Amino acid sequence: MAVYTDVTAEDLSAHLTRYDIGELLSFKGIAEGVENSNFLVHTTAGSFILTLYEKRVDPADLPFFIGLMEHLSARGLTCPQPVKMTSGEALGELAGRPAAIVTFLEGLWIRRPQVHHCAAVGRALADLHLAGEGFALTRRNALSVGGWRPLYERARDRADTVATALGATIAEELEHCERHWPQGLPTGVIHADLFNDNVFFLKDRLSGLIDFYFACNDILAYDLAICLNAWCFSADYEFDFAKGSAMIAAYQAVRPLDGAERAALPLLCRGSALRFLLTRLVDWLNVPPGAVVTPKDPLEYFKKLRFHRKVVSATEYGLS
Amino acid sequence: MAVYTDVTAEDLSAHLTRYDIGELLSFKGIAEGVENSNFLVHTTAGSFILTLYEKRVDPADLPFFIGLMEHLSARGLTCPQPVKMTSGEALGELAGRPAAIVTFLEGLWIRRPQVHHCAAVGRALADLHLAGEGFALTRRNALSVGGWRPLYERARDRADTVATALGATIAEELEHCERHWPQGLPTGVIHADLFNDNVFFLKDRLSGLIDFYFACNDILAYDLAICLNAWCFSADYEFDFAKGSAMIAAYQAVRPLDGAERAALPLLCRGSALRFLLTRLVDWLNVPPGAVVTPKDPLEYFKKLRFHRKVVSATEYGLS
Repeated sequence: MAVYTDVTAEDLSAHLTRYDIGELLSFKGIAEGVENSNFLVHTTAGSFILTLYEKRVDPADLPFFIGLMEHLSARGLTCPQPVKMTSGEALGELAGRPAAIVTFLEGLWIRRPQVHHCAAVGRALADLHLAGEGFALTRRNALSVGGWRPLYERARDRADTVATALGATIAEELEHCERHWPQGLPTGVIHADLFNDNVFFLKDRLSGLIDFYFACNDILAYDLAICLNAWCFSADYEFDFAKGSAMIAAYQAVRPLDGAERAALPLLCRGSALRFLLTRLVDWLNVPPGAVVTPKDPLEYFKKLRFHRKVVSATEYGLS
Repeated sequence: MAVYTDVTAEDLSAHLTRYDIGELLSFKGIAEGVENSNFLVHTTAGSFILTLYEKRVDPADLPFFIGLMEHLSARGLTCPQPVKMTSGEALGELAGRPAAIVTFLEGLWIRRPQVHHCAAVGRALADLHLAGEGFALTRRNALSVGGWRPLYERARDRADTVATALGATIAEELEHCERHWPQGLPTGVIHADLFNDNVFFLKDRLSGLIDFYFACNDILAYDLAICLNAWCFSADYEFDFAKGSAMIAAYQAVRPLDGAERAALPLLCRGSALRFLLTRLVDWLNVPPGAVVTPKDPLEYFKKLRFHRKVVSATEYGLS
């Protein structure tokens, strides 16, 4: 939540001459995006988001991210649409950083989602999975099952300082997931981070999906499992069956799950809870001194994981 | 440069029902304002700035700041205009903080001002001084000459760690200003912080003045001295006579300086350089561990102060 790179009006005005989006009227650094610097830009042609990609983003991934937003918006998904320069390129350079300008999406993210919000997310996720078909570039998911053990090893020695038996539980889960992770399920482009703050609503209507910087190729139903974890638990981390069943039904109305996906759903939910537990735990244990950003609580996902471990069948998530 | 208070879409939507500015479309925390939390808000009626006043602002000062923006904009000055609730009040409460919504001004601040920018600032400053007449509330300037010695005392012991003989120079200047500070000059509402980032331009036309949170009642010509310091030095802190004379001439075209003001200008310039040297020095010596904000360099104002100490007559600033 910061602006890492300073951009001057003079430099941005000059940069905008490469585009056909009017004259610069104003721009403000916005407190969003942990990884990049983002600016809300007003021009005579409307509102845009300028992103400067900072050091933590691999420049080799940028064609995937930008190409994906182009691909999805061309297929009717409401997501930020990269604006091309008159040269035809969408990726430029500003203030010594790779830079892109995308359309600004109006919308609000919901802190306390209701059942109908969860249904809308299920539908939009299936829309995204279908719209992603045919996208030519690929990006492996560095945070899928193969990436979890290295995270565990960074956290192992101090895991029990966060919660009793946390280390042992993670070790068991990791072993279980590595041994049983499903093979052969339908794959495609997944968002991989479709949390509340990445979904916009206007008057209860879903108005857009944002932040494709974890998007990758992976098991499609794993993306649904991430959303069940992110959206379908109560404030005290009890699974909300009404939300889960609404999300799954809305997903299936667009893209029905096959038998293997249905059978794998509990394990995919365990895996996705473990993935966010691990990344949050590593962040929690490695807060730099004096940091202003409070890391997210890893125990939220420990509680969710404990729920998933007791699940026997996907019907417990509301799969009918 | 931060957002200190978290605001939810649900809470802001509810808050906006107290106003007649349409439906909430989006809002983003913006990386501006050292003291307060600011959000750029889009509604169906346009763009607005929402400010939550944080602990460093004295709530007793808020009626002055908000009333002043109302007073000035009613008199045609282009500054943020507080939006009133249907109750008639402009100051509300949101997320446990005093909160105000003001109109959003398009515009860009200039890093490398030219002579014509300095002229525009001189004219706008005089406009502000005239528009401020008749404003009923008053606020004393805690950072005028009487407020400098306590700052000096906080910095004295470590001043020479920043520059050789800095402490002794400040002591001399302080003594000089306290002894000779002009009495009886015309006073009124001054902006007191009209730096580059508080003045917006669109296509070389001054489009607005912002950030009235240092505004107070003080010597009007002291405000001009602050602007001469902020706008009319080169990047290596040499006084730029062309800029200074353009600013003073443009100011005088609207509000001519009287004889006493003209005579006092060199001392007012010394004083205002000392004021910013002192506040920057205190900030510089008191950076909290792990802070992300880099304090502004106090030596910039030490160099400017050394220039002013050699000035004999206001004609050296371009006063004709």
